[in-house]
Amino acid sequence: MGELRVRSVLVTGANRGIGLGFVQHLLALPNPPEWVFATCRDPKGQRAQKLASKHPNLVIVPLEVTDPTSIRAAAASVGERLKGSGLNLLINNAGIARANTIDNETLKDMSEVYTTNTIAPLLLGQAFLPLLKKAAQENPGSGLSCSKAAIINISSTAGSIQDLYLWQYGQALSYRCSKAALNMLTRCQSMGYREHGIFCVALHPGWVKTDMGGTLEDKSRVTVDESVGGMLKVLSNLSEKDSGAFLNWEGKVMAW
Amino acid sequence: MGELRVRSVLVTGANRGIGLGFVQHLLALPNPPEWVFATCRDPKGQRAQKLASKHPNLVIVPLEVTDPTSIRAAAASVGERLKGSGLNLLINNAGIARANTIDNETLKDMSEVYTTNTIAPLLLGQAFLPLLKKAAQENPGSGLSCSKAAIINISSTAGSIQDLYLWQYGQALSYRCSKAALNMLTRCQSMGYREHGIFCVALHPGWVKTDMGGTLEDKSRVTVDESVGGMLKVLSNLSEKDSGAFLNWEGKVMAW
Repeated sequence: MGELRVRSVLVTGANRGIGLGFVQHLLALPNPPEWVFATCRDPKGQRAQKLASKHPNLVIVPLEVTDPTSIRAAAASVGERLKGSGLNLLINNAGIARANTIDNETLKDMSEVYTTNTIAPLLLGQAFLPLLKKAAQENPGSGLSCSKAAIINISSTAGSIQDLYLWQYGQALSYRCSKAALNMLTRCQSMGYREHGIFCVALHPGWVKTDMGGTLEDKSRVTVDESVGGMLKVLSNLSEKDSGAFLNWEGKVMAW
Repeated sequence: MGELRVRSVLVTGANRGIGLGFVQHLLALPNPPEWVFATCRDPKGQRAQKLASKHPNLVIVPLEVTDPTSIRAAAASVGERLKGSGLNLLINNAGIARANTIDNETLKDMSEVYTTNTIAPLLLGQAFLPLLKKAAQENPGSGLSCSKAAIINISSTAGSIQDLYLWQYGQALSYRCSKAALNMLTRCQSMGYREHGIFCVALHPGWVKTDMGGTLEDKSRVTVDESVGGMLKVLSNLSEKDSGAFLNWEGKVMAW
C-alpha cells in the first residue's frame, strides 16, 4: 500500500470539518505536496489561515463555490502560483445540508443545496480542467491514478438511492438528491475526462463527527482523523479500473 | 393482468409527447377515469384543449411546475372539481432536457433542468398530498397500489448512474443528474408517504419518439403509444412490494 505522493492539491471547504482535516493530513505526510491550496468562503481570521502561517506550502484561496466568477478567479490564481505546472488533485469537499423533512422541504433549499453540492463540483472540474490536464501530461506513461491527475468528489452514502442511509435520523431530501446527482456527475466526469488522463471518484467519508454530521452518538460514527486518514489511504491505492467508482473511507464499494 | 381502474388522474406536461399520450390512453380505457386533469404551461389553443372539447371528463389545468404559487393554485382548482373525493394518480411527467456536453454545461441549465425535473415532482407531491391521502382513505382495506393512490415519476434510464445510458448519443449532464436525483426522490417519497397509503414509483418510458427524444433512428426506439400503453399495463400490475422501484415501460427493474 503506497503513500499518496502529489505535487499539488486543492481542497474546497477547507476551513473546518473534513476539508480542514484533508489539509492537515496532507501537510503532515512524510512527503507533503509542494502546494496545498485550501479554499474558504471567507479567508480572513480562520482556522486554515492559522495553519498557513506555519506552512509555506499552504495557500488560502478565497472561493464561493456557487459563483462562476469566483471559481474562475480561483483557477487563475492557482494557475499563477503553479507557474506552468499542473494540479494533481482537485478535492471537491465543500458541501451543505438542511435538516428538512419531506413535508417541509422547499424549492429554495433544494436549489441551494444542489448548487453547492452538485453544480459546483461540475463547474470546478471545468475551471480546473486545463491544470488537471497539464498534471496528466506531466506523467504521460502511467495509467490513471490520484498521483497523476484526479477529481475527488466527497459524496455520501446518504446519496445511495438503494440504501436510504439513516433515513430515520434525517430525511434531508435536498441533501440526498444532491448527493445521488453528485454520484452521477462523478460517473460522467470519469467518462468525459478519461481521454485527458484524469481519474475521478466519489467518496463516502463515513458519518463523521463534524458540525454537519450533528451530535447524535452512535457506534458507527468516525472522527475526522479516521475518515480523512482512511480516504487518503484509499486514494493512494486506486488505479484506472476504479475511475467512476463510489467508495467509502475504507475502500468499500457503495451501492448507487 | 388487470386493467388500470382509477377515478381520477392528473398528468403534468400533458400537451405533447408522453404526457399527451397518457391522457389519450386514459380517455380510451374501457373504464375511463371520471376525471383526467391535464396540466399545461400554456392552456390556450393546444392539443390537449382539442381533446377536452370531445371529452367532458378531461379538464385542462394551467400549471407552471417550477412555480410554487402556480402549483398551489392547480391543487386548489383540482380539489374543487373533485368535490371532496381524492386524487388516485399523480403522474409527474413534465420534464426538460438540454443538449449540453461536459465542457459547456452551465450553472443556469443545471439549475433549470433540476428545478423542472426533480424539485417540481417534490413540490407537486406535497401540494397534492391531501388529495392523495383522501384517495387512499377511500380504499382503506387494500394494500398500496396505483388504483388506490400513487405518485408516478417519469424518470429515465439516463438517470441510471450504473448504466450511463446513451452517453455516446448525448452527454446531457443536467438531465442525467436531475433524473438520478428524481430516482432518489421517488425512494424518499415511497418511504415518507407509505404511512399515508400512497404508492410511489419511477418509470423509464423507453427512448421514445418525441420532440425531446430527438430524431436519431435506432431499433431500440419506441413510439409514444408503445411506451404509454406499456407503462399503463405495468402500473396496473404493481403492488405494495414495488413501491419505491425504478422500472421500465415493460416492467423490467432498472439499475440505480
